[in-house]
Amino acid sequence: MIDAAVAELKELLGPRATDAMTVREHHSHGESYHPPAAPDVVCFPSTAEEVVEIVRISARFHVPIVPFGAGTSLEGHVQALRGGITIDLRDLNRVVRISVDDLDATVEAGVTRLQLNKALRNTGLMFPIDPGADATIGGMTATRASGTTAVRYGTMRENVMGVTAVLADGRLVRMGTRARKSSAGYDLTRLFVGSEGTLGVITDVTVRLHPVPEAVAAAVCAFDSIKGAVDTVIATIQLGVPVARIELLDDVQMDAVNRYSKTSYAVAPTLLFEFHGDSDRHVSEQAAAVEAIASERGGRGFEWATRLEDRDRLWHARHNVHFAALALRPGCLSWATDVCVPISGLSDCILETKADHANLPFPVCLVGHAGDGNFHVIYLLDPASQEELAEARRLNERMVARALAMGGTCTGEHGVGYGKMKFLEAEHGEGVEVMRSIKRALDPDNRMNPGKIVDI
Amino acid sequence: MIDAAVAELKELLGPRATDAMTVREHHSHGESYHPPAAPDVVCFPSTAEEVVEIVRISARFHVPIVPFGAGTSLEGHVQALRGGITIDLRDLNRVVRISVDDLDATVEAGVTRLQLNKALRNTGLMFPIDPGADATIGGMTATRASGTTAVRYGTMRENVMGVTAVLADGRLVRMGTRARKSSAGYDLTRLFVGSEGTLGVITDVTVRLHPVPEAVAAAVCAFDSIKGAVDTVIATIQLGVPVARIELLDDVQMDAVNRYSKTSYAVAPTLLFEFHGDSDRHVSEQAAAVEAIASERGGRGFEWATRLEDRDRLWHARHNVHFAALALRPGCLSWATDVCVPISGLSDCILETKADHANLPFPVCLVGHAGDGNFHVIYLLDPASQEELAEARRLNERMVARALAMGGTCTGEHGVGYGKMKFLEAEHGEGVEVMRSIKRALDPDNRMNPGKIVDI
Repeated sequence: MIDAAVAELKELLGPRATDAMTVREHHSHGESYHPPAAPDVVCFPSTAEEVVEIVRISARFHVPIVPFGAGTSLEGHVQALRGGITIDLRDLNRVVRISVDDLDATVEAGVTRLQLNKALRNTGLMFPIDPGADATIGGMTATRASGTTAVRYGTMRENVMGVTAVLADGRLVRMGTRARKSSAGYDLTRLFVGSEGTLGVITDVTVRLHPVPEAVAAAVCAFDSIKGAVDTVIATIQLGVPVARIELLDDVQMDAVNRYSKTSYAVAPTLLFEFHGDSDRHVSEQAAAVEAIASERGGRGFEWATRLEDRDRLWHARHNVHFAALALRPGCLSWATDVCVPISGLSDCILETKADHANLPFPVCLVGHAGDGNFHVIYLLDPASQEELAEARRLNERMVARALAMGGTCTGEHGVGYGKMKFLEAEHGEGVEVMRSIKRALDPDNRMNPGKIVDI
Repeated sequence: MIDAAVAELKELLGPRATDAMTVREHHSHGESYHPPAAPDVVCFPSTAEEVVEIVRISARFHVPIVPFGAGTSLEGHVQALRGGITIDLRDLNRVVRISVDDLDATVEAGVTRLQLNKALRNTGLMFPIDPGADATIGGMTATRASGTTAVRYGTMRENVMGVTAVLADGRLVRMGTRARKSSAGYDLTRLFVGSEGTLGVITDVTVRLHPVPEAVAAAVCAFDSIKGAVDTVIATIQLGVPVARIELLDDVQMDAVNRYSKTSYAVAPTLLFEFHGDSDRHVSEQAAAVEAIASERGGRGFEWATRLEDRDRLWHARHNVHFAALALRPGCLSWATDVCVPISGLSDCILETKADHANLPFPVCLVGHAGDGNFHVIYLLDPASQEELAEARRLNERMVARALAMGGTCTGEHGVGYGKMKFLEAEHGEGVEVMRSIKRALDPDNRMNPGKIVDI
């Protein structure tokens, strides 16, 4: 069946459908520890109508579809576990519409977040969601991405107003409207946000935009303890300070940052802050309030970064934590995982997790979007060691179980892919069967990114 | 079948299952113009487990279930169109848990928003969503309610973290977690928010809470034109002023307010503002910025209300717009409808809608949550006149068509019920069939609030 499908795809798309080994290999993995799994063919459609035709061919020949954005996912989302057709959406890369009055934009799925922000220059608006990588808006929608600014601006859940998607049977369905709110029926948009390609292929996305803040300031503050840092975060949010970023890095991660970014921050639990406001005075008020909170909780004094280059240096260091971690053990295999807990449990969850990391044969870095109760650990493993891989698996399972016991989730922003499917029963119980019912209703043949989130 | 079901329900609940005519009549309608439709029996469970038992009886005898909160819905949501069992959730009225550290709370579905806010006294936190009526949190969740504060705090979509619901087959399913974000599978919570009882009966809800603002100010400003008022709203939001409420009332509505609330505001298009901030200075800065914007757009000067009693008077007048409208025509039948459009289209949509209202035999009031592009009109009809009812129907259809043509929605916050089902195809196209697929998957017998949102 696949050979006939490939032949039809080549007829439809010419050289934009290819089974060349290098292209298939490039599309066999994201940025995770999961082993690669190549599709049989990779397609590069340039319109939604071509996506429709590809999905119709998949339906006719019963072969799977795997959507592919920037390839930066962390839980095996793009692995073609059962072969089939990978749809690389990079050529659906038009910014369709920007409305300054309405603070929204519609982009094709392959537009990246930096590309969108470039298109927004001189409008006074920005798209603030920042998962780190320059991911595509379609991919960020499909994985319900968030990142450093979610504490202020929300996640893709809050910022996607609508999507257009191609369903398993080839129907092109527009979901949502450009109204900022609606009570008109089931929230199909939110169902597709985070569905990881398992319900359909997203071809365009309408997102909310936000005003570029009039004033921005950043600061860094080391703490005596993780608890002091987390208590500072809790008090900041309780006080209603509209902090734009509030990031926690542990001592191991700070050491890695210093080595990699040639900085000289204290090697201690550290909070990085960014404040956005409608005036310098408002930003200063926010920062002063947080500085007072921190000093009462073991903060060792703020280091300010109000000049653009100092802020850039600070956030550049934060953006590079993954590369800094990798540099701790050259040639290593990195396993990045994340959980998210109610913030009241965050310091216990982190401390117990770090206790697990004592006496390991490999380094583990920890960095968190502390304002959301979300943190990541990165295990830096010897790629030749099955023992280290097994140990990382055990650590990950213990951390997830701990987060779930606290009322949290097995992933705050990386998604399920196939790496975290085994935790869904523990997290959602009967809810997983409800998810299966929905999957069966919309993709009865299980052709849309099969083997991800739920199997039916 | 219904007789046998009623007998079993009485056995289960004793006097808390009743087919007394007065109780059935009380549960036959919300606050809408739609004709009443009484259930065969009304149940008052006091636990989620009793709801499970009731739904199991409904399954066994193939009779419909209609959930009932405060009975304040506007599109016929609670009408028992096909008879059956109404579940009044008023006795599921416990505030289960409040976490000050996590800024969240879990409440049973029958807890009202004022009851929750009372329970939050002295915590420094509040639940800001305010649809006007003292609705239940379960009902607000089921209809995706919002109201005056949505421009700042979002709608129930953004503020519900999780729900527990009883599905059609009696399964009790907990959806969502207490983590502030998650990428762990399909967003079942958001699917149930706005599902109006058609997918299951919500028994408890976990909501986000917000810090009570340190400083609050309010203001009122009359404008030369609707367009000047709406342009003020657009510029305010573009500038990033975090206004907490920004409400538009037309001249007819202002006249009604003056008569009803014994106030003496100008009879002209008017904006009501509320500002929340973390200091008096921040609130003053916001207000000064908006005052400048308004004065450039035909605003006739702000009237300030910083003292609590002045603010209360102002917002009391706003809260009473519905009663003020009713008082324009004593004994009338009121038909309240709403649409929501991209804000760039709001002034055109309102002006064209008001042009439709010229030379009508009945008054029409208009009030809007302008910051969201959402507005309501209230037709005040002679209950004996079929002509006036038909005219209101025609006006409503024209207004909805206008909103949809602008990329808006047929209802911003009132919901679909059965009053707006006929508009869903025009709004969602193929999406309605996707909604039907989901409904069929979760309620194959069409027993959960049948005849609402979609029929299968």
